[in-house]
Amino acid sequence: MKMTLDCIPCFVRQALESARSMTSDPTAQEAVMRDTLRWLHEADLDESPLVLSQRLHRRLRQSGKLTDPYREVKARHNAMALDLLPQLRDEIASSGDPLATAVCMAAAGNVIDMGIRSMADEDDVLKSLRHAMEEPFVAQWDAFRRSLQDARTILYLADNAGEIAFDRLLIEQIGPSRVTVAVRGGPVLNDATLSDARSVGLHKIAEVVENGSDAPGTLLDNCYPEFRKRFEAADMVIAKGQGNFESLAGRGHGVFFLFKVKCPVVASQVGQPVGTHILGQFKESAHPGKPEKDVA
Amino acid sequence: MKMTLDCIPCFVRQALESARSMTSDPTAQEAVMRDTLRWLHEADLDESPLVLSQRLHRRLRQSGKLTDPYREVKARHNAMALDLLPQLRDEIASSGDPLATAVCMAAAGNVIDMGIRSMADEDDVLKSLRHAMEEPFVAQWDAFRRSLQDARTILYLADNAGEIAFDRLLIEQIGPSRVTVAVRGGPVLNDATLSDARSVGLHKIAEVVENGSDAPGTLLDNCYPEFRKRFEAADMVIAKGQGNFESLAGRGHGVFFLFKVKCPVVASQVGQPVGTHILGQFKESAHPGKPEKDVA
Repeated sequence: MKMTLDCIPCFVRQALESARSMTSDPTAQEAVMRDTLRWLHEADLDESPLVLSQRLHRRLRQSGKLTDPYREVKARHNAMALDLLPQLRDEIASSGDPLATAVCMAAAGNVIDMGIRSMADEDDVLKSLRHAMEEPFVAQWDAFRRSLQDARTILYLADNAGEIAFDRLLIEQIGPSRVTVAVRGGPVLNDATLSDARSVGLHKIAEVVENGSDAPGTLLDNCYPEFRKRFEAADMVIAKGQGNFESLAGRGHGVFFLFKVKCPVVASQVGQPVGTHILGQFKESAHPGKPEKDVA
Repeated sequence: MKMTLDCIPCFVRQALESARSMTSDPTAQEAVMRDTLRWLHEADLDESPLVLSQRLHRRLRQSGKLTDPYREVKARHNAMALDLLPQLRDEIASSGDPLATAVCMAAAGNVIDMGIRSMADEDDVLKSLRHAMEEPFVAQWDAFRRSLQDARTILYLADNAGEIAFDRLLIEQIGPSRVTVAVRGGPVLNDATLSDARSVGLHKIAEVVENGSDAPGTLLDNCYPEFRKRFEAADMVIAKGQGNFESLAGRGHGVFFLFKVKCPVVASQVGQPVGTHILGQFKESAHPGKPEKDVA
């Protein structure tokens, strides 16, 4: 995906959130913001947003001398989401279509994000989840079910902390024994890492691997060779979140993307409004205004 | 009001909106963004957001070589709002409390703003207006009615284009013969200028004056001396919008502020959440978390 000017205000907002995660000292926060503005002023906008985002967050972590500014936020989101699992698992079991319900919950879980730092307790998470589940869902159900039926190995690319607890519900439905869950190779934003996967118990039901990269998506060239082999060899890949979509859409491999459209840039790329949940393959390129036909 | 770090992403977003209003050439838009980032990197954050905003928008107009980048947007908003007046005027007349209804409409009109460039037709404006009228309204009704009863001269400080048509409905209710409407002295953002006041017919029912400044608020020191005299002499001042609130709150004069809380900085200053409509006086200072007691 190509950088657009819309990404710039978004990067500035992310830098502010990071600065506030790293320190409560207003002078230090201001220094982070000034540094980010200067860096963005000179940034190479021909890079993809994901590469720029990776560099920005490395820079932010370095300036704050913190390896993981979002550690506390992520732990809180994991704990809150985890508390909701028994109740949601019952809902899935008693629904007419458990797989579809689990897919919807996993997609709706994508709402747990930096924008929602205000989520103070389980009630807030549950409310956000319920609200998200009412948003439009554009899905290639038939292709997804067919692919699930045939796949012996499934690679599941996780996205955020918190959300990863709801991924567990979907993985339980699709059969964890054939699933490998991949998380980021290092902290970036509130993206899930190995410790997040462990704290929601994913390691107990499926294999969990790190992709080797600290990009907030899956830049294959930036990942471990071992991870790339798994990616190419998997019968099916399920990729959560916009970051994974941005980095893997149009790569030809049979990846199913499951995400909430969170920004106007991605919205124009998939031809669906912000807020929509998507389950679909974008095998060829996904140019603005040219979503793959059978997604709609 | 003091600048906070939250203002920075907001300025960057405003610059992008301006760049797109000024030119459809992506290279020129990118140049505007890079220039804005460098300027913000060096900006004096001890200035008020309003002064910085005034400077930023001067700079943007200069770089785009346009005196009024928002001319078309403003004309469209005026025309759409104007078309709705007969219908809204009937609603006011048949309501149990025409003054309160007109105040609510004028406050809700504050929703016509740069964030809502997507408002394509009258239906969109009407929908936004209806939606806004359902938001919480925190008002000092008694003080407002008392002040209206006693005032021989009322200075009405307008805010945005489009919105200014709904101001007309309120001015009709409070008696236009004693009202002077003040608009910005020059184009800045989508703020109403003399031509906007004229295009919604305000000059036919009340006196309309320019304040002499191109700040997106009312920086008295920056206004015509003649305007300052009117401000001091008026029995009552009604100030629309956040910009006027930011610049005039706590100045001791009996100003009634009527606005929608649109950003977290102002929200913390008035002690009400984003989205709330406010009608109130903030005679003393309005420090974060210390709203004037009788507003609530």
